[in-house]
Order: sequence, then C-alpha cells, then structure tokens
Amino acid sequence: MITTKQIKLIKSLQQKKFRNQHGLFVVEGIKMVRELLESNFKVNSVYTTDVSVVDYYDGPIELVTADELRKMSGLSNPNTILGVFEIAKVEKPDVTDWILAVDTLRDPGNLGTIIRLCDWFGIKYVVCSSTTVDCYNPKTLQATMGSIARVKVGYTDLTAYLKKTELPIYGAFMNGESIRDAKLPKKGILVMGNEANGISTEVQHLISSKISIPQYGEQTAESLNVASATAILLNEIRR
Amino acid sequence: MITTKQIKLIKSLQQKKFRNQHGLFVVEGIKMVRELLESNFKVNSVYTTDVSVVDYYDGPIELVTADELRKMSGLSNPNTILGVFEIAKVEKPDVTDWILAVDTLRDPGNLGTIIRLCDWFGIKYVVCSSTTVDCYNPKTLQATMGSIARVKVGYTDLTAYLKKTELPIYGAFMNGESIRDAKLPKKGILVMGNEANGISTEVQHLISSKISIPQYGEQTAESLNVASATAILLNEIRR
Repeated sequence: MITTKQIKLIKSLQQKKFRNQHGLFVVEGIKMVRELLESNFKVNSVYTTDVSVVDYYDGPIELVTADELRKMSGLSNPNTILGVFEIAKVEKPDVTDWILAVDTLRDPGNLGTIIRLCDWFGIKYVVCSSTTVDCYNPKTLQATMGSIARVKVGYTDLTAYLKKTELPIYGAFMNGESIRDAKLPKKGILVMGNEANGISTEVQHLISSKISIPQYGEQTAESLNVASATAILLNEIRR
Repeated sequence: MITTKQIKLIKSLQQKKFRNQHGLFVVEGIKMVRELLESNFKVNSVYTTDVSVVDYYDGPIELVTADELRKMSGLSNPNTILGVFEIAKVEKPDVTDWILAVDTLRDPGNLGTIIRLCDWFGIKYVVCSSTTVDCYNPKTLQATMGSIARVKVGYTDLTAYLKKTELPIYGAFMNGESIRDAKLPKKGILVMGNEANGISTEVQHLISSKISIPQYGEQTAESLNVASATAILLNEIRR
C-alpha cells in the first residue's frame, strides 16, 4: 500500500526544486505513461486505479484508489495512471545532424511544442540554456504529447556550448536572410530565442548565419510565436 | 465615475454567453488596447489607471482606480488599461486569395496562434465552424497578440459554406499528398481540423485535395500540434 509520505513526495515533483532534489519526474495519463514505459527512461514507480490499462508492461505496478491518485496528481481530473521516472543524463549531442538550441525560453507550452516538432522532424537533441524552462515541468511534458520519450533534452551554459562547437550556428531573427533563399548545410545548430526578447546579446555574437521567415504582404504582425517559427524553420531544414 | 453595475457587466464579458448577449468583448493591456483602438473595431469604452498610456487616442477615456480595474479585469495582474469593443459582423470573405477554415477547433490558444499566423502570412479571413472556440475568448485574444485587429474571423455552418464555394478546398490530413509536391493554386481554402479528431467526416467529403506535412526519418511522433501544422502549411502556400 502507498504511504502518505510517498504520496507527498510524488506530489512535490510538480515543483522543479523537488524534481532536481530527487532526480525524478512525473507523467500522467494512459498514452504518456505508455510512451515513457516503452522509452529509455528508467522507471521509478507506476500507480494506477485500473491495472488493465497497463497490461503491456510486466514491471511492478501499484494499484491505488481514485482518491490516492488524486492526491498525488497535478491534474484536476487525474487520468487512471501516473508514472514516476528518473531524470535522464543527456550524453553529448552527436554532431552528424541538425541540433536545436533554445535560449531562455520561458513558456512550458512552447518548449513542449518545440520538443514535439523535433520528434516529427527527426531532430534528436535539444540543447537548452540553463535559463530555459524545465523540460520536466508538467505543462511542458503535456505539450510534448509523449515526444519527450524520444527527443533528448539537456541544459547547459549555452554560450560556452556554442563557443566550443564546430557546427555552423543559425539563429532565427526578425531581420535575417530569408529561410527560402538560405542554402542550408546537412548539419548545424538552429538557435531559437526568448518569446519576448529573442536571442540574447551574448549568444547573438556566436551566430554564424541570421535567418528569418518572410512575412507576406504588408508588415502587420510584429512577430511569430516561437513554436510557430520553429515549425516553419524545421520544415525548411528538412525539405 | 464607473458604477458597480458597469464593472459587473464588463466582468461578465469573460464569458461567451454575455459577450454574445451584449455584442461586446474585452481586451486588456497597453499593446492590445492600442491595436484595437487603431483598428476598424468600434470602441465601446476604455478604462485606465493612467491616461498617459493612451495619449495617442482622443476619444473618451474613463480614469479608474487600480481596485476598480482589478474588479473588471479577467487577469490576476491587470495591466493599466482595459478596452471594451463591439463584436464585428464579418462580411463575406472575398475569394481572390487564400482563406483559412477551421473545423471544431477547441483550444483558445491554438485559435489565437492561428489568427496571428494568418496575420503574418497575409490571410485576411478565418472561417470557423460554429463548433469552434470563440475568437473573443480572452485566451484566444491574448494568443493573437493583437492580430485580431487585422484578421477577420467569422462563424458559420462550415459544411454549408464549403458546399457553396467555388474555390478548391484543401484539407490537412495525416495521409495526404506531401505539401512539398502539391501544386498549390493562387487561391483556395485551407481547412484545419480538431486537435484530437482532425477534420470531421462531414467536412472531409467536401475536401478536393488532401495534403500533409512529411515526417522526417522514423515514424515516431503521431501528429503535429494544429497551430504548428498551420504555420508550416501557410508558409508553403506563400512560397
């Protein structure tokens, strides 16, 4: 039987501080838990109100009551199953393909959508500045729709990382070369900036090519949402 | 001086029912209110705690206290100014360019992001099925980042609308022709579907061309977020 102490620990993983302290994160819902159980993430524990939803898995599962699930969940309507997994150590990105880097991204939904896009476009690594929102934030995880199981996301001093790389560094700007004219190499790093301020001055100095997405017709909208811009740029990279 | 009754009415406009009853909607914040005041939307009233933020405007403005603004606002931290505007009647879309149609879109953030994308790509009309989330929902308005001031958004029986049009109708599907191979005409209608279920069966019958966005590498992610997909498709349409 699950103890009050365990429930309290799991509930605390909604906060970054406790996720880092324990090296654990939580995913919820039948689909998300399945994606994670079938991934390389190491499972810590699984709790469900209905073991039949997890019949594909032969590791230990703890049956809990709806009330216990509600107490450990971050959702207002918890969905049958909750899994606790170990935060992965990300090995060095391999440099044979494109890598996405994000500089001080703040919105968990945007980061999650971007991870989902990387999964779609076969980008295997996302390098985040240490100032970027946590990829194990429940809202980020939700927005990845399970793609967190396949895309490796690491945090580092982005400036130091970019200083060391030999890959060409592309950055998304409002006033760069049109992505439609740019001759994109087979591999490189694409840097996306903060929602309000774009790429930080420090990182700007390290960009080898500024690219942008041409607006159509009159100059009206001031900018695109960073996830929308990432969608368009990754699609162009993979053309 | 603003009355309690006025405050109550403005607060009620957070809900669709009351927006429709009064034919009014609310926008908040210095940037958003400015975009709307400078648009074709008819202003009903403007309330601010600091008239200097609205010095570009010479219509009537009501000075309110921070406490009054908080009471009428839908935000936890109201930002200086709130404007009430009349819901616009949308004239018939003109058919000389691309039009975006959305079928049963549910998430206000997605609709707002899509309106912002249309603004960027010069798409002037968004035709929503009557089952789509309200474009005057505060979360939708926020996600448009002011683009609601320039893109016309109307609600209708989408099936009936598509039956009458002579434009070619493109729909985003998981198994359509690659958007990169499709020869796109100068004008048409692009239909985007619901977040979970895609385009409804009824509307599917009216699609003349099914298009899709090629995934790269292994088939992993199940789908793209509808706003991400719209970003990519509109960029391709405008190439």
